[in-house]
Amino acid sequence: MSDLNVHTLTDAVIARMTDKVEPRTRQLMSALIRHLHAFATEVSLTEAEWFAAIDFLTRTGKNCTDTRQEFILLSDVLGLSSLVIATNHPVAAGSLESSVLGPFYLPEMPELPLGSDLAVGVAGTPTLYQGLVTDTDGTPLAGATLDIWSSDGEGWYDVQKPGPLKPAARGRIRTGADGRYAFWSIKPADYPVPTDGPVGELLRAMDRDSMRPGHLHFIASAPGCETVTTQIFASDSPELRRDAVFGVSDGLIAPFVSHAAGTAPDGRVLSTPFCTVDYAIRLRRA
Amino acid sequence: MSDLNVHTLTDAVIARMTDKVEPRTRQLMSALIRHLHAFATEVSLTEAEWFAAIDFLTRTGKNCTDTRQEFILLSDVLGLSSLVIATNHPVAAGSLESSVLGPFYLPEMPELPLGSDLAVGVAGTPTLYQGLVTDTDGTPLAGATLDIWSSDGEGWYDVQKPGPLKPAARGRIRTGADGRYAFWSIKPADYPVPTDGPVGELLRAMDRDSMRPGHLHFIASAPGCETVTTQIFASDSPELRRDAVFGVSDGLIAPFVSHAAGTAPDGRVLSTPFCTVDYAIRLRRA
Repeated sequence: MSDLNVHTLTDAVIARMTDKVEPRTRQLMSALIRHLHAFATEVSLTEAEWFAAIDFLTRTGKNCTDTRQEFILLSDVLGLSSLVIATNHPVAAGSLESSVLGPFYLPEMPELPLGSDLAVGVAGTPTLYQGLVTDTDGTPLAGATLDIWSSDGEGWYDVQKPGPLKPAARGRIRTGADGRYAFWSIKPADYPVPTDGPVGELLRAMDRDSMRPGHLHFIASAPGCETVTTQIFASDSPELRRDAVFGVSDGLIAPFVSHAAGTAPDGRVLSTPFCTVDYAIRLRRA
Repeated sequence: MSDLNVHTLTDAVIARMTDKVEPRTRQLMSALIRHLHAFATEVSLTEAEWFAAIDFLTRTGKNCTDTRQEFILLSDVLGLSSLVIATNHPVAAGSLESSVLGPFYLPEMPELPLGSDLAVGVAGTPTLYQGLVTDTDGTPLAGATLDIWSSDGEGWYDVQKPGPLKPAARGRIRTGADGRYAFWSIKPADYPVPTDGPVGELLRAMDRDSMRPGHLHFIASAPGCETVTTQIFASDSPELRRDAVFGVSDGLIAPFVSHAAGTAPDGRVLSTPFCTVDYAIRLRRA
């Protein structure tokens, strides 16, 4: 076994996989082992650094709970999540771009009537979101679904609050026969990613900001079209160019228009200032 | 931010580190981000595979306890641990080679008198380990310490057994004025690394064996010399060439000589068969 040295070890580890290994698994593990070893060799990783990495990964796993996924956050702040999304959803001219799912999505939220307020009693500036959903040829898509979630106007998601979960600023809206959607929620605030765990330590070591520009998450789907997981960002956020998780692209920035108290375009009368967002969504045919 | 695409994202993530970042941290994180992104791009990592990796790492963290370190095991089976050791402890002709620490080391075990039995009542063939500790010039090293631990003769470490820890097959031995060491323990058995966790799943996906050849761990140290963490392996193990953690090198293979019941070289009278191992240890001057 004296052939196992820094020059031969990588190939030896890969060669341990037999012919029975599923081809994609072989491809993934071969590439992983090569890059992992190349990284350690390139930086001459010390044993203390290796152990710090073991400890970091262990604590990252321990920090994961039902409502917090520290490894997804790690992937997000290292730009890996955005890279995987960009690889799997190449931008096509004019169609809705993808962005990161993030850690706060909850499946199977109820479908609410068109025009509903998803954020009754939630802190923040009431905002009417509306627009037309079409395919890339401009044909309106009736019955398209938007599965929506966001923080409140102070930057907190419902799942982050203590006590039993009370879903807020979440829900599904379906477009009408004309392909248009409309719903009320709040204007999401800029907020920091959680920095009280290992990923926070890493961000500080890299002297990086933890802020995300305010954004509304949604998953857009329609029969016969590709489903898109994405976010839209408020164009007036000072954090747009330093998103801690690299989720912003130009096509996902939407103007939030401010209005004084009064009657909104859908006839709702508000006693406080409110915003409106018009955002057109174009989905690709599958 | 439309410049954030698969071609520009890696540099953009690295560029977020400011001038204030400690240079070694910058080097490590830059290389890590580059290799991580290069891996994902090279294999066109799918979102399902990405999520499977998140889930795997999370469960690996959750599997770590006070007596089990699943991330070290992961590093071991991917050959990373051996690579880091080989990088940091280049082999010098004639001096003791390093090997992986493994997950079962306990610090601060008691020092026992020269010739002690470290494994009273432990299952396995009694084995007398003895030899001379010298520097690489052959000068005997009085007062050199061997910090020893191993599985029992059935492949189990004390820390793996249920109930309160009763240290067994562990202890420190110091060389005498002539630089010689001697102690009794058992002949360690071949055993599998733990396969009931995420790393076991990975080994099965790679169609790999989980066995380690029987081995005795020790950390050899002496005033003025470099400390070496290593293992010696029984030369008759059928697992020598397929160690699951890539820890074997030729210089660490030792013959275990079998004897019928009777009087051992140190005068101990045994009513059962026993083994003797003569293994010379050469340490480099620091």
